[in-house]
Amino acid sequence: MQLIELMDKIFVIGIGLIGGSLCLKIRDINPNVEIYGIDISEEHLQQALESGIIDFKSSIDNISKANLVLLTTPVDISNNIITEILDRINEKAIVIDFGSTKSNICRITKNHKNRENFIATHPIAGTEFSGPKAAFSELFTEKTIIICDAEYSDNRLLGIVIDLFNKMKMKIRNMNSESHDKHIAYVSHLSHISSFMLGKTVMDKEKNENNIFDMAGSGFESTVRLAKSSPQMWSAIFKLNKKNILKSLDEYIINLNQFKTLIENENIAELNKEMTKTNHIKKILKGI
Amino acid sequence: MQLIELMDKIFVIGIGLIGGSLCLKIRDINPNVEIYGIDISEEHLQQALESGIIDFKSSIDNISKANLVLLTTPVDISNNIITEILDRINEKAIVIDFGSTKSNICRITKNHKNRENFIATHPIAGTEFSGPKAAFSELFTEKTIIICDAEYSDNRLLGIVIDLFNKMKMKIRNMNSESHDKHIAYVSHLSHISSFMLGKTVMDKEKNENNIFDMAGSGFESTVRLAKSSPQMWSAIFKLNKKNILKSLDEYIINLNQFKTLIENENIAELNKEMTKTNHIKKILKGI
Repeated sequence: MQLIELMDKIFVIGIGLIGGSLCLKIRDINPNVEIYGIDISEEHLQQALESGIIDFKSSIDNISKANLVLLTTPVDISNNIITEILDRINEKAIVIDFGSTKSNICRITKNHKNRENFIATHPIAGTEFSGPKAAFSELFTEKTIIICDAEYSDNRLLGIVIDLFNKMKMKIRNMNSESHDKHIAYVSHLSHISSFMLGKTVMDKEKNENNIFDMAGSGFESTVRLAKSSPQMWSAIFKLNKKNILKSLDEYIINLNQFKTLIENENIAELNKEMTKTNHIKKILKGI
Repeated sequence: MQLIELMDKIFVIGIGLIGGSLCLKIRDINPNVEIYGIDISEEHLQQALESGIIDFKSSIDNISKANLVLLTTPVDISNNIITEILDRINEKAIVIDFGSTKSNICRITKNHKNRENFIATHPIAGTEFSGPKAAFSELFTEKTIIICDAEYSDNRLLGIVIDLFNKMKMKIRNMNSESHDKHIAYVSHLSHISSFMLGKTVMDKEKNENNIFDMAGSGFESTVRLAKSSPQMWSAIFKLNKKNILKSLDEYIINLNQFKTLIENENIAELNKEMTKTNHIKKILKGI
């Protein structure tokens, strides 16, 4: 009940895969919402309007009308505008950000007078596609969402947001923002780098031999799937989580070099041992 | 017609995902076949018998009864036994091998008196699962199969095999075995190494924090999917295609180091440029 009564004026800032999918789902839950869209791309705004993701185009000047703000821009932009948003919202409004790095935005907002109105989250959901046309209402269903540094958010507002996430059928986890960034470097950011560089290596090699891609099977496709991701979104993440990403990338390169040496030496026993250990990932991933 | 009349006594050597799936599909095409299975694992043989993949257990001593031999063991084993198989087959039999490396087996067989009975192929089909229980009849449908050094095979026998592959709805490509191994290092073997090492890096880091895997999404899962693959199968491939794989791995590590430097320097423009170029893989992969 809380949600339906309170969250009827929604501002979404950045209407791509995440922002668009959120709007579609929230409208499913509460058909009475009015959704106001803000985006730097007029084309995306127009698409979002035409496809019913948003009801009105708007601007940050009107944000005091909002009782719920969804911040779904690339993380560098979110960090640049979060202070202005918190400055301008009305005192009962909730601001949720959905970016993939969390310690910077939590640091920026820490001493803001309206910090209690802010909820920092990271939904573990996405596809390799971007823009409002990629949005779909069930993107978040059964997915995990991590709420960071929840102790700085107002408990009543947090309760409303948890109610929303429950209605979206998400699995909620709490985490410290620094820990979040450290671990997510391994389980998400590193995958994207490995995939982009695999795509690059193969394309550099095969650039004059287009039909060689007949040889690429589903294994190659799944390892390079993430190389289709949005460069702007990811370069911002790489910058903002630089320290943790460089550490994970160093470890990855060390492991590749060690494996290379095993191949050079035709050390089959050790190669089998390494791969058998890693096979254990089957069990770990079962829940995904 | 040719197929149904001629290929009724089939020997399959190595009854895993590939061998098992081949038998299931060929039996769909011609229910009158008798399939004899040979495998080092008594457990796999028994499973294959019980699930109707094979009709009889057999041994290489009986291989002269075969008019079609499917060689689907790991590539090191195939290389070890191909000469004995060609020595023992009857003069009208066809031997097809389905391994992921081709130049070695083509070199080994090149001067054999029965070279014409041999067809060297590589189906670009597979999953991360192995063993006869992973087999399914449609594994090969609409997939590419590469026939290597076809000029050394007898034309009439080759015609029968092409007829089989067409009935299996496979897309046939011809290729020199040396070129095959060079290119497949990039579009298949390198993906497996990148995936195994990504899995290792994350597991090493997160070994004492099981529930951190709640943070892993579908992106991570798709990049490490291949880390579930069979170690024995892959260590043999790494050994037999060592030269090409080391070259592709070197290039991959160089690219990773260059990307790392761009992150270190927060060179957003260049990061965006690199990723945008690699995004082009979307178009290339459209056919997969």
